[in-house]
Amino acid sequence: MPGDAAGLAAAVAARAVSARDAVAAALARIAAADPAVNAFTDVTGDRALAAAEALDARLARGEPAGPLAGVPFAVKNLFDVAGLPTRAGSRINREHPAAGRDACLVRRLEAAGAILVGALNMGEYAYDFTGENVHDGPSRNPHDLARMSGGSSGGSGAALAAGMVPLTLGSDTNGSIRVPGAFCGVFGLKPTYGRLSRAGSFPFVGSLDHLGPMARTVGDLALAYDAMQGPDPEDPVARARPPEPATPTLEDGTGSLRIAVAGGYFATGGDPAAFAAVGLAAAALGARSVVEIPEAARARAAAYVITAAEGAALHLDRLRARPGDFDPAVRDRLLAGAMIPAPLVERAQRFRRWYAARVAALFEGVDVILAPATPCRAPRGGETTLVLDGVPMPLRPNIGVFTQPVSFIGLPVAAVPVWPDGGLPLGVQVIAAPWREDLCLRVARALERAGIGRAPVAALP
Amino acid sequence: MPGDAAGLAAAVAARAVSARDAVAAALARIAAADPAVNAFTDVTGDRALAAAEALDARLARGEPAGPLAGVPFAVKNLFDVAGLPTRAGSRINREHPAAGRDACLVRRLEAAGAILVGALNMGEYAYDFTGENVHDGPSRNPHDLARMSGGSSGGSGAALAAGMVPLTLGSDTNGSIRVPGAFCGVFGLKPTYGRLSRAGSFPFVGSLDHLGPMARTVGDLALAYDAMQGPDPEDPVARARPPEPATPTLEDGTGSLRIAVAGGYFATGGDPAAFAAVGLAAAALGARSVVEIPEAARARAAAYVITAAEGAALHLDRLRARPGDFDPAVRDRLLAGAMIPAPLVERAQRFRRWYAARVAALFEGVDVILAPATPCRAPRGGETTLVLDGVPMPLRPNIGVFTQPVSFIGLPVAAVPVWPDGGLPLGVQVIAAPWREDLCLRVARALERAGIGRAPVAALP
Repeated sequence: MPGDAAGLAAAVAARAVSARDAVAAALARIAAADPAVNAFTDVTGDRALAAAEALDARLARGEPAGPLAGVPFAVKNLFDVAGLPTRAGSRINREHPAAGRDACLVRRLEAAGAILVGALNMGEYAYDFTGENVHDGPSRNPHDLARMSGGSSGGSGAALAAGMVPLTLGSDTNGSIRVPGAFCGVFGLKPTYGRLSRAGSFPFVGSLDHLGPMARTVGDLALAYDAMQGPDPEDPVARARPPEPATPTLEDGTGSLRIAVAGGYFATGGDPAAFAAVGLAAAALGARSVVEIPEAARARAAAYVITAAEGAALHLDRLRARPGDFDPAVRDRLLAGAMIPAPLVERAQRFRRWYAARVAALFEGVDVILAPATPCRAPRGGETTLVLDGVPMPLRPNIGVFTQPVSFIGLPVAAVPVWPDGGLPLGVQVIAAPWREDLCLRVARALERAGIGRAPVAALP
Repeated sequence: MPGDAAGLAAAVAARAVSARDAVAAALARIAAADPAVNAFTDVTGDRALAAAEALDARLARGEPAGPLAGVPFAVKNLFDVAGLPTRAGSRINREHPAAGRDACLVRRLEAAGAILVGALNMGEYAYDFTGENVHDGPSRNPHDLARMSGGSSGGSGAALAAGMVPLTLGSDTNGSIRVPGAFCGVFGLKPTYGRLSRAGSFPFVGSLDHLGPMARTVGDLALAYDAMQGPDPEDPVARARPPEPATPTLEDGTGSLRIAVAGGYFATGGDPAAFAAVGLAAAALGARSVVEIPEAARARAAAYVITAAEGAALHLDRLRARPGDFDPAVRDRLLAGAMIPAPLVERAQRFRRWYAARVAALFEGVDVILAPATPCRAPRGGETTLVLDGVPMPLRPNIGVFTQPVSFIGLPVAAVPVWPDGGLPLGVQVIAAPWREDLCLRVARALERAGIGRAPVAALP
């Protein structure tokens, strides 16, 4: 049975593999591997098998198969799934009533033939880079179960690396798709802010939240992205019709693209292997120029301030009523956020407009920028200190040092897993101007073809 | 020489009066009355006379006269005037370099033939309802020089009531056109948020600031509004083209309009004369229904929180560097605003969206709502306590009790001066749905025709 979504969908459409067998295989793999990995918080086996049988029946009647026919997928548990409370990694929200219908993106994937098999573990309320959920236990890194999956879409990365499903959805506010992509060695796409509808998902920071797909091949990322994109009247941000996406012509090559490496801020303060990974990608693409993204450190600080303050505004009532039911690491950051003076947030927003304009100008001279996704490989589970350039620092906040300045202004990014040596993978961010997901995907595909970007299934015990 | 802008422009166009004589008469009136009133901070006599002579020359050559040909006007000193520093009522800003060109609305009025004769006194940084500027001295109420003009557009109201010019511009963030309109007994228009360009003016609270005209007749208000409206690429908010304004057909009458009086919040907590003024207007218009604007008290509180926080963000560097150069009453409110936690502002903004939707629904059943502009007549200069319903309260913040909930969501309002007895005037707000300035003006005109809305020139010593 093909391991990738595209191959599996083709086999199902050709009736070489039944959707039921595809789903049953995924459920079996989950049952075998998840006790060790802990990627899933909910497995919707009955629903999935029923959907698979219905699809097989439609195919038997000669009805057309969608581009994701029979592809099992799973979603971070902040997406609404009909019949489940949308826990968003929290203890509190699992007391909510069950969702009445699926999130927009779940519906769109299913409309394309994909089949939901469950909901995935995540850091509490998405305020996390570790994947270590105190209520559900950590999602573990399939390539080394003693290590973190990364967060907050930890289960979304781990389920892919463990080969449980070929496609997952995550969310990314400050790096939550790109960090687990890097740690687990899988591909991810954080689209342009406003590209994919967030209707039916539990928010974190409205002005920074993105949803996006994760997969083990670039072709699968593109397939899922194509099935999900398009405006949605139910998401105020995705309501306006953005520029039409170029249907990704992944094989167009990158010869004509102006590809640069991010220098300055993005070339210091990380494990040498992180920069080696970027160097490998740059060499494979023939990228020679270096660009400096102006004021990236300030952008990260501003993203921090806005995140803490907006997140605190969202959770204020829960913080007051039930502080003991939060993960203390999340609660304390939110409480700090609740006391940030408003004028500082206002200034961070003002800086954001300035920074967006400066970076937009940068993209007049370059099509794609490469940067590391994380400053380090997956740390050991439970670790709280990160040592970079010999300097010990708190681990949690510093994992996002290279992702935050990019999502802060909603740029599209493909996260490409690179294995620079015999050790665990790292991630390379392929960053483009707003609405140019097509360029991110084309470059990611070129790296995949060059053997630089790879997402092998882990050899689990 | 006609005292109103429309009549004067007609006379100048017909060459019955020269623009030079019109300007000279205004300058003479300013010279005579302003020492007592203190409405002007700058008189641009040379510029005005040169403009008048140029206009007369054009008219002599048979070139067409604009709709405001030869009409002298003056602007609150937060509008850029080429050659003057834009002081915005402050001590600090008058050290700024002189403006390089006029504000957008000044240019638009001059393009229609009007002639700028000076800049007007205002409360410091527009954070004021009294018109009492500590640096420039108070602008006094021409109808009783011992009393306040109202603020922050105090000079704009006083210059009209003193008969110095037939047209002024003010700004209104929480009531700064409507309050001096009420206290000085003149008409004002606070248009829909986003209708008139703010380019070239010194801001206060970006999400609440409006600019607008003040005059002694409704026809003059409409004439000025027509000359100024239209999108402007230089104001991000006025950039999108709003619905085309109906050219105000002032004489259309109000028989077909559904006119209601605001009850609840807007019918308590004020001097009985304020409600008597509304009652006179309602009777003249045949308004019988009462509507309750939901959660108006909360709207006022939210407007307060947003004003203080956004204002503080704007002035933070000045507050740090030069606290001693502020009006202490302004400084202390801004310092308090600098410490408001961001999540409270975020919640105020969220409430604002809810409230805007509720009020929009209200306008499905009614065209125009009448409410008092202020809870009292012009207080004595220097007064700091307001007694309402026997309850003493701080004067400054409570003057805006009826204006803040309306501007908070950017509704257009015509402020109509009403004289319910032998005493000083009060104001009636004529409020419509967004973009329906035409309705505000039509109803204001009906009140003027009925003799209820009047803006006589004060008999100054």
